Amino acid sequence: MVAITHVGTYLPEKKVSNLEFLEKFETDESFIRNKIGVVSRARKEKEEKASDLCIKAYENLNSKTQIQVADIECCVVVTQNPDFNIPHTSAIVHGAIGLPETCACFDISLGCSGYVYGLSVISAFMQANGMSKGLLFTADPYSDIIDENDKNTALIFGDGATVTLLEQNQPGLVPLGFDFGSKGKGYKNLINEEKLFMNGRAVFNFTAATVPISVNKLLDKLDLTKEDIDRWYLHQGSKYIVDTISNRLGLDQEKVVFDMYEYGNTVSSSIPLLLSKDIETIKTGQKIGLSGFGVGLSWASMVLQKMNS
Amino acid sequence: MVAITHVGTYLPEKKVSNLEFLEKFETDESFIRNKIGVVSRARKEKEEKASDLCIKAYENLNSKTQIQVADIECCVVVTQNPDFNIPHTSAIVHGAIGLPETCACFDISLGCSGYVYGLSVISAFMQANGMSKGLLFTADPYSDIIDENDKNTALIFGDGATVTLLEQNQPGLVPLGFDFGSKGKGYKNLINEEKLFMNGRAVFNFTAATVPISVNKLLDKLDLTKEDIDRWYLHQGSKYIVDTISNRLGLDQEKVVFDMYEYGNTVSSSIPLLLSKDIETIKTGQKIGLSGFGVGLSWASMVLQKMNS
Repeated sequence: MVAITHVGTYLPEKKVSNLEFLEKFETDESFIRNKIGVVSRARKEKEEKASDLCIKAYENLNSKTQIQVADIECCVVVTQNPDFNIPHTSAIVHGAIGLPETCACFDISLGCSGYVYGLSVISAFMQANGMSKGLLFTADPYSDIIDENDKNTALIFGDGATVTLLEQNQPGLVPLGFDFGSKGKGYKNLINEEKLFMNGRAVFNFTAATVPISVNKLLDKLDLTKEDIDRWYLHQGSKYIVDTISNRLGLDQEKVVFDMYEYGNTVSSSIPLLLSKDIETIKTGQKIGLSGFGVGLSWASMVLQKMNS
Repeated sequence: MVAITHVGTYLPEKKVSNLEFLEKFETDESFIRNKIGVVSRARKEKEEKASDLCIKAYENLNSKTQIQVADIECCVVVTQNPDFNIPHTSAIVHGAIGLPETCACFDISLGCSGYVYGLSVISAFMQANGMSKGLLFTADPYSDIIDENDKNTALIFGDGATVTLLEQNQPGLVPLGFDFGSKGKGYKNLINEEKLFMNGRAVFNFTAATVPISVNKLLDKLDLTKEDIDRWYLHQGSKYIVDTISNRLGLDQEKVVFDMYEYGNTVSSSIPLLLSKDIETIKTGQKIGLSGFGVGLSWASMVLQKMNS
């Protein structure tokens, strides 16, 4: 079985405070804290690209557990802001960190549901191809595509990246099952032509209606109840959406992790950022519920369980 | 087991003849026919996007075997020329062909190795998630990114798209095994910044050195010899590269399919275009060798076998 064993992360030190924009956007601190849930946004340097953020997340991973690069058999990058459209960003990361020629590389294009999808894709790919160790990166530097004058997007997104080490037959977090879905007819509600456009109300309504159904469907399929889940990592889209989903599902608020005040919505990196902070404290047998949702429109839910081998 | 059961394709009717460019590029018909192997290039309409090509390939698939859209559980698009970076093109295709909300969608970013990688990813993903039917699209409309004055690229690439239907427990072509590899340090040899740049010699040398090793490694792993393979579909990069690889491997020339004279190098669509022409004639038990190589630099080889269930 393929398990998550370690998570490395990168958040730029530079921050942009939303409190400086109260007047510009005719808003107040309560709205910033209690609805958006983003007080400051992590901001990369202008010239930094997705691969640069991935490499910094990898350095963090390497400081937590020493990686033997020669052992890595696949490298997958989830991004919708690649360095270039050609080649894939995973090729650039592959070269930069010196992965071996035998390492399979590809990118997955998905937004906020990308980490959950990515975990399913990489673990199935590793299992089918008999691979022992793989890296799943997430990096979506939205600061490159945000219109700083657009109230719908300017106060929400932060830059960041993560890398998850997956290993066969090691103690770690093992996927128990997934639920996926798509509403392609709604794709124009979240789109990047010149700059990012988001119909905030439409995306919120879609999420609030869809995600609770997905989570309940998955729990039924796995023959679990909400009470069996020890912790919930919902995509950190905004405080309001996390609160709404957890209220609709009737989740125990103490189990619902919220942590984006200091860096913002980091798209596919939001869930692994939560996981990286907690991973050492998850006890054998405990179960974690994850759900990502957004661009596409797309959603994906899963349950992980800490296992000893 | 997940098997390939049908392949739909789309090649634009409009063609651009390379014979009209002999003087411009100071070349002759023999070079066009015997080295490049592309006499005319299939050319989409300017406003057509990757999703439009996918939808036309899907219509062709639907004319070959009637698809019940409600049964499709995943939809994957391989492209490096998506309609937009946000959202993924598979979401747009999902909406356009009316796939159900339960259908998982994501894009894979890879070039000429993308079909082989894509087959591994989608079949593993379907197997792991207990999905019965899935669609794997390929579409890379390079005419949008080619510099018509660049001799290294202008005479080679054509537009096209394909869609492969994969089904559980149906007679069809089943993957026996894969070999993957990456040389990320060489990524600048094939890159799109403003327009596509290709260091033709470097890509040729990489391919000629790497692909025969990959194919032999895979055959060894599967305990097969070249003589056990009934047909070879090598990525149709150019006539010269297909000839070089098959000579270095010592393949029986009658088994090596070549067919790009009338439409050009269609990137990730080249192998499924070959397969779509032949699929009805492949007999139970026969084995097919595939290898894709290019952007990344990246390569992937596989063997398929026709099975009765």
